[in-house]
Parts: sequence; structure tokens; C-alpha cells
Amino acid sequence: MTPYEELEARFRELSHLGHAGAILHWDEASMMPPGGGEARGESMALLAAIGHQRLTDPELGGLLDQAEDAAEQLDPWQQANLRAMRRSQQRASAVPESLVHATQIACTRCVQAWRIARGNDDWPAVRPLLEEVVRLTIEGATALGESFSLAPYDALLDGYEVDTRSAQVTEVFDDLKTFLPELLERVLERQKTPVPVHGPFPPEQQHALGESMMRALGFDFDRGRLDVSHHPFCGGVPDDTRITHRYNEGFLGSLMAVLHETGHALYEQGLPSDWRHQPVGSALGMAIHESQSLLVEMQVARSRAFMTFAAPIIHEQFNVDGDDAAWSAENLHAKSIQVRRDYIRVEADEVTYPLHVILRFELEQALIAGDLVVGDIPDAWDESMTRYLGLSTRDNLKDGCMQDVHWFSGLFGYFPTYSLGALTAAQFFAAASRANPELEQQIEAGEFRPLVEWLRQEIHGRGRLLSAEDLLVEVTGERLDARFFKAHLERRYLAD
Amino acid sequence: MTPYEELEARFRELSHLGHAGAILHWDEASMMPPGGGEARGESMALLAAIGHQRLTDPELGGLLDQAEDAAEQLDPWQQANLRAMRRSQQRASAVPESLVHATQIACTRCVQAWRIARGNDDWPAVRPLLEEVVRLTIEGATALGESFSLAPYDALLDGYEVDTRSAQVTEVFDDLKTFLPELLERVLERQKTPVPVHGPFPPEQQHALGESMMRALGFDFDRGRLDVSHHPFCGGVPDDTRITHRYNEGFLGSLMAVLHETGHALYEQGLPSDWRHQPVGSALGMAIHESQSLLVEMQVARSRAFMTFAAPIIHEQFNVDGDDAAWSAENLHAKSIQVRRDYIRVEADEVTYPLHVILRFELEQALIAGDLVVGDIPDAWDESMTRYLGLSTRDNLKDGCMQDVHWFSGLFGYFPTYSLGALTAAQFFAAASRANPELEQQIEAGEFRPLVEWLRQEIHGRGRLLSAEDLLVEVTGERLDARFFKAHLERRYLAD
Repeated sequence: MTPYEELEARFRELSHLGHAGAILHWDEASMMPPGGGEARGESMALLAAIGHQRLTDPELGGLLDQAEDAAEQLDPWQQANLRAMRRSQQRASAVPESLVHATQIACTRCVQAWRIARGNDDWPAVRPLLEEVVRLTIEGATALGESFSLAPYDALLDGYEVDTRSAQVTEVFDDLKTFLPELLERVLERQKTPVPVHGPFPPEQQHALGESMMRALGFDFDRGRLDVSHHPFCGGVPDDTRITHRYNEGFLGSLMAVLHETGHALYEQGLPSDWRHQPVGSALGMAIHESQSLLVEMQVARSRAFMTFAAPIIHEQFNVDGDDAAWSAENLHAKSIQVRRDYIRVEADEVTYPLHVILRFELEQALIAGDLVVGDIPDAWDESMTRYLGLSTRDNLKDGCMQDVHWFSGLFGYFPTYSLGALTAAQFFAAASRANPELEQQIEAGEFRPLVEWLRQEIHGRGRLLSAEDLLVEVTGERLDARFFKAHLERRYLAD
Repeated sequence: MTPYEELEARFRELSHLGHAGAILHWDEASMMPPGGGEARGESMALLAAIGHQRLTDPELGGLLDQAEDAAEQLDPWQQANLRAMRRSQQRASAVPESLVHATQIACTRCVQAWRIARGNDDWPAVRPLLEEVVRLTIEGATALGESFSLAPYDALLDGYEVDTRSAQVTEVFDDLKTFLPELLERVLERQKTPVPVHGPFPPEQQHALGESMMRALGFDFDRGRLDVSHHPFCGGVPDDTRITHRYNEGFLGSLMAVLHETGHALYEQGLPSDWRHQPVGSALGMAIHESQSLLVEMQVARSRAFMTFAAPIIHEQFNVDGDDAAWSAENLHAKSIQVRRDYIRVEADEVTYPLHVILRFELEQALIAGDLVVGDIPDAWDESMTRYLGLSTRDNLKDGCMQDVHWFSGLFGYFPTYSLGALTAAQFFAAASRANPELEQQIEAGEFRPLVEWLRQEIHGRGRLLSAEDLLVEVTGERLDARFFKAHLERRYLAD
């Protein structure tokens, strides 16, 4: 066995270990009764520690050295695989195992407490646990930063999207901070109020609708499931992709969440099976991942064309008598793109969404830099929400700083990828539309296969062969540019 | 840290590793889409191999030696814990890691193929996979046997119930082979046919009924769940006990399966929390485990007293109009204890059940001894079923040798524990009745707490402090004796 082959064998086992972690995580969020939480945290922390031990094994470092010395004998996929291996090994080696284990335990405890505390609007119950998570995260970020010569926050950001730096993000966000508030005013002035749609919308029927839309888009139920959790997510592994949603009073929020997660899932299910269980066969960073979910949700599912296809299916699913105008494609589409200043990020429209993200980006940078302490988050949140969206969260932390799972589960540096993903989605979709002039009519007819095949070929099937930046240039002809996103918003919200 | 303390720390981690395996196994059987099977098999095999590596680590052997030398300083729980640790280490060390890994892969493949093949009555599809499982099982059993100076089959049996030998089992079963067929004839002659109960019995309502009965018996839903799988089982871990059932055309089969698994679950949930994650804090062998499920199902739930409590709840749950006589406690009880010669073990009554087990015990002994090859199982099964129950399975392998998950998932030596459990359950229940003269009235009133508390104190809460034999003597005053089981059958089926 060559050193490279030995590495493939070792990373294959790491993938099998990751499989266990992924399923335990999904189960923890969607199935596990609360009493199982303590033991689950221990089990997940042990798996993380075992993975860390293996990644930091000096033998593995030696194999990487040897394989890199003979890298010219490898093909481009193998070379990309080797680069991804080295990156994993370097990131793991930067942080001691005890910290990995402690962080995993602290995060599991905190997220479990958050689920209960959020329902009770009980910030004091979760605050000390979050302090511990932040403390350990800063420790890890500092160690990573030293190892990679990055500022601590950039070291975290780099973990979710390679080579992304807060300076670039700030530049993009500063532009949006100018563009969006003005656009928002104009949209709010001119948009019409849709006719209300009356239920009931029973959970089982919302679930059935979600599944039928997933099927229409090409989700492979032989290799995945739809379930319910506190916070929608896409988990599992490529051949067993688990997406979750939660039921809404209305149905449209849940449906759009399902479609969003379906975008993530199509990416996972479309990863190159020849490279299954190897780093190069897995998804690129979270900005690209989010571009796939937002391409499906924002570019496709919230389009007029999509609702022309979906409205009759939705109406039939709920089988509610009543106003034909309410159930028309036009009205449901108007509902699906309604813009408003509101508290909850995951329910936000695409015009206000980046403002939610910018708020979090700014606060989490301050947290990691030590300029903001956990105890001051509620005030800082309230102040930012008031500034960006004119809404106070002073007496409503549940819908303020307690609304998102991210920080409570240790995800810092993740939020910016949502808006980078939105920009990337607009740029990809513009390319898809250029490549296929029939795209809109196909969507209107419920024919999603040509789009999904294009995504498979151009993006999903390439795994981590290219960097995110190179992929974007290869597929769209240029680097990330906000003009596609801005043009999309102007076309959708101001054009007619 | 003393060597004993170091052992506790190591076994705590093994328990956390086992947690991952238990949840992956539950998920595989109840949630996983078929496409996830290949990767799941790899992941579970890796976890098994890691556990095996840790158990066979020479350092652990050395710690055991040292701790055993200082065992007189330990209290009885610690001493029992140390004995259980040694046993795990010895069993693991008898089998090479490559065999553990290969067996796990072969079993996962075989059981996944079985799920599909059984539905299609497609023996050829699963036969070669079962041959591989049997081949690897014989290899493992031979290695274990050599290490423990046991015949290969006894080495397997010992893995499910310590110190049980096939010679003793044969003795007990020979007695039942004389007793049961004659009893069966008399029961069939005198039993009356119950009035049919007409549905519909929708799955959601069967599920709700199952959950309400679990709750009545004291199942803690904060630490467990009820789900659906191909084959009912009790899995998970003590603080997150997962039981499953499958829906029946009628509802009684499913309900009794739920109650059966609830008996297992009460045992798991009642294990001593002070010894959580240590070997001594886990359940005794499968005969004792099965005694707890059969105590709940056969001794309690199929009693006249229980149906007096349950019948009105059942009727209300399904809310079906119709014959009051059909829905009476008397009639539903008669249905629940109907005896008949039939094909399916898991649906068999308690009179014919041991004959199903004896058949499997005899065939699997022959398989492990090499006196029967997999290809000849269908004929041997048909021949035995004809002899014991007068039923041929010649053209119906689905309801013959393909009906049980056990062999296809590598469980050989497990079946006898079902009937040892039935005998043990009768003996325990007789002791519970002696200790509590009000027991029958309590069951009739739906007051299960006194019985469950007795079980907690006498059995569940003791974990593996005592051997199964010592526990039985301690609780019932004597060693295993079939007379309690026989008396129970005669009382229930021939008394009035």
C-alpha cells in the first residue's frame, strides 16, 4: 500500500466514525427523549475524541508528508483529496483532545438546556451554559488562529468556508447594509397584502405535502427521510440524508423550510459516489451548501413559476373549501414572497434576512474578540434589532437572542455563510438560466430534472475537487459578485 | 487512581461506545432508509472493532490482574463489577478483531437482505448471506469454546445467559416435549371460540393504545420511546429505552407485543442508576431479561384481571360500535389466551411457544455442530414443524425458517433463553403473588406500581450484582423449576 492508499483507508474509517456522529446528532435533535441527553452527550464527545485522536496520530502526519512528496503521481481528484486530508489533520492538530471533548460536552448540555429554556423564555437557565460554550470556543479559536496565523474569529469562519475572511465578509455586508434598508422601504411601500388562506393545516398533511414536494424535486427517499425537530436542519450522510422541519400555524413556512433543506439534501445525495467516504467526496463549505438550499428555496420555490406548479397540489393536499382567490397561484406566490420587518431569522424574507445575519455576524465577532460578554447579549441584540429592523427584543428574548440553535450548540462563524450563500445562489441560478433558456417554463411545469441534473454535473458531483472560489468561476465565469443577488431582489420585488 | 478506578473509567467509555452502537442499531431497524444500509454496516462494524480493541488492550488485562489481586478491598458491587469486566475481556480476547469486524459486516448485510427477502418469500436471495453468517459464527464459537473449554454451541449460549449449558436446556426441553403436546390436545379440546371483534384498528390508534398501556405500567417516556420496526424489539440504553412493535390486522397482537417489550423496557429503566455505565449496572442475561418481558406479557397482561382493567380502555380507544359481548373483558381475555397450532413464533400462545423454541434450539445446535447446512434448513424446519405442531412449511418459507430475525442477524444460542425466561417468569410471578396477596386485585384496578416496585427492588435494581441463579434463589427461595410454569398453564387453560 502506498502512503496515499493508507491515508484513504484511514479516512474511510474516519468517515464511518463520522457516520455514527451524524446519526446520533440527528437522533438527538429529532427523536431522543430528554432523559437520554446526558449519556448522549458523553457518547458524542467520545466519538469526537476518537476522531481527534486518529486525525492527530503522528503516523498519519508522516503518511501525509510522504504522500505530499509523491503528489505528482496522483490524479487531480487524489490531489484534492490529499489537500482536504491535510487540512483536517492541521485543524485537528491545532486543538488539544481535552478541549475537543470538553467543548462537545458543553455544547450538548447547552443545546439541550436551550430547547427547554427557549420555550420558557428563560435566559438565566441557559446563560451560564452559553458562557461555558463561548469560553471554550474562544480557547479553541485562539489555538486554531495561532496554528493558521489567523485571527480567532477568522479561524472559526475558515472552518465553515475555507479561505473566507471577516474582512471580505465585512465588505460585502457593508454594501448590503446600504442597499437593503433602502430597498426594504420601497418594497414595503409597494407590496400588496395577500388574501388570507384559512386552514386547518394538520401536521400529517403538512408532512405529506413536504414529502410530495421533495419527491417532485428529486429527493431520493431510498436514501433519506423527512422528520420533525425544534430547528429545521439537514443531517445524516450522503446515502442517508435526514432533513427535518417544524410545523407552522400556516403551512407555507414549513413547506419553504422543507424545500430549503431539500436543497441541502440534493447536494448531499448528489455528491460523487466514486469518492464516498473520502474528504474530496464530501461537500464544500457551508456557503456553497447554503447556496444549494437557497437556490431551491429562494430562486426556485418562491418564484411565480414554481407556485403555478405547486398551488393546485397544495390546495388539493389540504382540501379546504373556500376562496379560490386565496388558493390561486398568484396569491400563494404573493404570500411566499411577503416582506416584513420581523423577529425570527428562519422565517424572514430574503430582503430582511441578510440584516438578521449581519446582526449576528457583528455580535459573534465581538463575543469571540472578548469585546462582548454573554451577559450583555440581550441588550446588544435589542440595540441592533432596533437599528436594523426597528424592532425591540427587550422583553422577548425567546424571539431575540434565544431564537437560533447556533451559538448554543457552539456554531460561531457560521452565520455569515447564510448570506454568502444567498449571493452565491443568485449567481449560480443566473448561470443555470443562461445555460437553459427553458428553465422557467420547466419549473412552471414541475419538471425539475433538467435543473437538478445541471446542479449535479456542475456543482454536486464535483465534491471538493475545486475550491469554492474556483468552482464559482468555473460555473459562472466570475468570482462572487453581489450584483446577481441585488438584481434578483429588484426583479422580484420592484419589477412589476 | 487505583487499578480498579482506572478500569471503571475505561468501562465507562466502553459504555459510551456501546450507546452509539445501540442507537445506530435501533435506527437501522426502525428509521433507516434502505440506501443507508451499506454505510451503516461499516459504521457499526467500526464501532464494534474499536470496542474490541479496547477490551483486548493488554494494559486492560494488566489492570484486571492488579484489581483482582486487591479485590478484598472492594465492596460486593465493585467485586461483581470486576467479575463482569473480566468476563467481557475474556470473551473479547478469545476472538480476533478481524473476525469481529467481518461478522458484524456479514450480519448487517444479511439482516438487511432478509428484510426484503422475507417479504418476497425469496430464500435464495438470503441463503448465501446466511451461509456466510453461519460460517463466521462457527469460527467465533469455536474460538470462544477453546478459550472457555466449552463446546462451540455452549460458548454461544453462555454469551446470552452466563453458565447456562445445552445439556441443562435439553433436560428442561425434554420435559416440556412430553408435557406440552398432551396439554395442548386438552386445551384445544376444551377452549371456546371467542366472538370476533371488528375494526377498523388504524395504526395511529394502535400506537396510542400501546403508549397509554406503557404509561399505565410505568414506562418512563422521559427516558424512552415507542416506534415501529419489522420485528418488535427493545433497544437503546437505560436512560433512553427504545421499544418497537409492528401493526397487526387485529390490534391484540400488536398490543401484547408492546406489553412484552414494555417488560424488557421496565427492566432497563429500572437498572441501578448508581452503577450506570458500569458492567454491574447492566442487565443480567437474556433469560432474566425475557423473564421480565414475559412476566408482564404472559403473567400480567394475558390475565383475566388485566383485561378487566384494559377492556374498557381498548374499546374507548378504537371507539367502534358493535357487539358488547365482543368487547367484554371476558371475550377479549379469551381472545388473548387463544391457543392454536400456528406458524409464527412471535404470535404464538404460551402453550405452543416452547415447541417453536425447541425446534430452533435443535436446528441451531445442528448448524453450529456442522451437522446441518444452511441449504437444508427449509427441509429440516418443515420436518420439525410437522412433528411438533403438525404444520408443514414446505412452500411457505416466509412463515417458516425466514420468519425470525435472529439467525440472519447472527444470534445463535439466543432462542433457548425465551423459554427459560417463560419458566423464570412464572417462578418470579409466583413469588410476587406470595409476597403481595392483593396483587390480582391491584392488576384488575390498573394499579401496577406495587408490582413494578417489587420488581425494581428484587430484580431490576440489582443489575448484575448476583448471578442469575443466585438471584432466582434469593427472590424465589429455589433454583429454576418448571413446576411453576406448568402449574400456571394448567391453571389458566384447564382450571375452569
